[in-house]
Amino acid sequence: MPAGWAGTIVASGPRSLFEVAVQLPASVSIREVGPRDGLQSEPPVPVEGRVRLVDALSATGVGRIEVGSFVSPKAVPAMAGTGEVFAAIRRRPGVVYSALVPNRRGAEAALAAGADRLQVVVAASERYNKANVNRTVAETLDEIGGVVRLAGDTPVEATVSTAWGCPYEGEVPPGRVVGLAERLAGLGCQAVSLGDTTGMATPTRVEALLAALAGRVPPVNCHFHDTRGTGLANVVAALQAGCADVDAAVGGLGGSPTAPGAAGNVATEDVVHMVEDMGVATGVDLDALLAAARVAGELVAHPLRSQVLVAGARTRRAVG
Amino acid sequence: MPAGWAGTIVASGPRSLFEVAVQLPASVSIREVGPRDGLQSEPPVPVEGRVRLVDALSATGVGRIEVGSFVSPKAVPAMAGTGEVFAAIRRRPGVVYSALVPNRRGAEAALAAGADRLQVVVAASERYNKANVNRTVAETLDEIGGVVRLAGDTPVEATVSTAWGCPYEGEVPPGRVVGLAERLAGLGCQAVSLGDTTGMATPTRVEALLAALAGRVPPVNCHFHDTRGTGLANVVAALQAGCADVDAAVGGLGGSPTAPGAAGNVATEDVVHMVEDMGVATGVDLDALLAAARVAGELVAHPLRSQVLVAGARTRRAVG
Repeated sequence: MPAGWAGTIVASGPRSLFEVAVQLPASVSIREVGPRDGLQSEPPVPVEGRVRLVDALSATGVGRIEVGSFVSPKAVPAMAGTGEVFAAIRRRPGVVYSALVPNRRGAEAALAAGADRLQVVVAASERYNKANVNRTVAETLDEIGGVVRLAGDTPVEATVSTAWGCPYEGEVPPGRVVGLAERLAGLGCQAVSLGDTTGMATPTRVEALLAALAGRVPPVNCHFHDTRGTGLANVVAALQAGCADVDAAVGGLGGSPTAPGAAGNVATEDVVHMVEDMGVATGVDLDALLAAARVAGELVAHPLRSQVLVAGARTRRAVG
Repeated sequence: MPAGWAGTIVASGPRSLFEVAVQLPASVSIREVGPRDGLQSEPPVPVEGRVRLVDALSATGVGRIEVGSFVSPKAVPAMAGTGEVFAAIRRRPGVVYSALVPNRRGAEAALAAGADRLQVVVAASERYNKANVNRTVAETLDEIGGVVRLAGDTPVEATVSTAWGCPYEGEVPPGRVVGLAERLAGLGCQAVSLGDTTGMATPTRVEALLAALAGRVPPVNCHFHDTRGTGLANVVAALQAGCADVDAAVGGLGGSPTAPGAAGNVATEDVVHMVEDMGVATGVDLDALLAAARVAGELVAHPLRSQVLVAGARTRRAVG
């Protein structure tokens, strides 16, 4: 063997985090968050455009769509008019249309608009939570309890943001996320989403947090941003750890339109393309999804960070 | 559990390809191919710029750098002058400086220029091989045998391109790649690189091919393009399958400069950032690598597809 070649196809040493038998789930449920987490960071898209995007997504086979949020239009101008969006979309039977709400007031508006589910958020770091909603974590948990009571039969799902790290505080111990998830379950939240808010997760961290949560909380969803390129690798790690529920945004929406190259959420079409090839069913039609991504591209009027949108599926053949 | 939530943290069903205990190697050897595979698809960069990039890379701690190729300047104008690049770089002791050669004529030039190793290429699909070097696979293997004899004590390493699929022919059976790799080893090639030339690999395919090759050929390197976003996920799959040798290109060079959004090789800084966080040592200094990526960005004068270059490391803290 020439000097300098370290490559072998036998592992040179075990790493504790992955010392498990790896399996992939037979299917994964995808929640499409582009109309909310994607568009919220863009210059406002008119209601009719947002409706067009949701309707295009409804035609893809995806089972859940986060339509928008009910937040202060001053704080998030792009989410003004979410009630009008809910009123105008054509609901496809079987598809769950959810809304993000920061508080009881938002929850009232979302319920009035006919949201099927409410999504609440609390950060795993005090400083991020303060920056996001100007409340302590404890105050936010109180508010979430109020939202759950208000929601009645409407399921409330909770996101723990900065679950793999906080841009202000740095590392977030998995135990803190587990504690928060248990608190949220105790408050009546029916599912917990782990938010990698600023793309600080890597595959071993994903596996470690999911292992720490195993069996302790309701169904877990993973929400990855591709800020540092690890998004799809983290999706695979989540699947390997048995999590069969992930968020994604059509077209990879969610990057900053003023920062060229900044990545957003993992792109739904890239996720679908990869995991379907790995034998994990999504129920999503890739061609219909690419059509929705083209709608998204028209609405935001800048290039999207979605590789399959640019390159086509791996089954596409070159001519010549 | 509310209807529509498929997420659990217990795997719902085993998938055969990953029914193995997963381990990560303690370290990975990275070959930096930006100056060759990256710059070859760009408008020609002057020799002094190419030298500047190689010298910047030599300062990062990376152990192997593919400096350029010795090919027809008519076919690949950007690689004209590779001999001059070799003559001008400051060689760092311990770093291996290699060159890609398509034939004996190129090998003679590379040996005259003082390349430490030669890289030869043959495709796993006849049609791609014909398009690439206008020869059959059998003819190319003959030529490679000639290169090995010519090289004498200089190691020759071989790339099997289109190892995970061909844009013309479609699927490439793993058995064909194994057969080719064995032929190349028999011809005297001291290592085999699996080239995902147009980004058709996904993690399960990576694991399957590496499993098929296990123990049958010399050290194996994986060379991924991020064409469909799966690059880093494939790197993790390769590590999990025990391959501890990967190619990467600084700045994610290698996309088409005329196709906005088209991805190139996996970005070296994104690979280093991710795997180091996973406990896999690279020997590469991330800050020095980001400095080299900025040099690459100046040379090609267009935005690079490298997320860590844009976002910084996950340890970077926000202010405010």
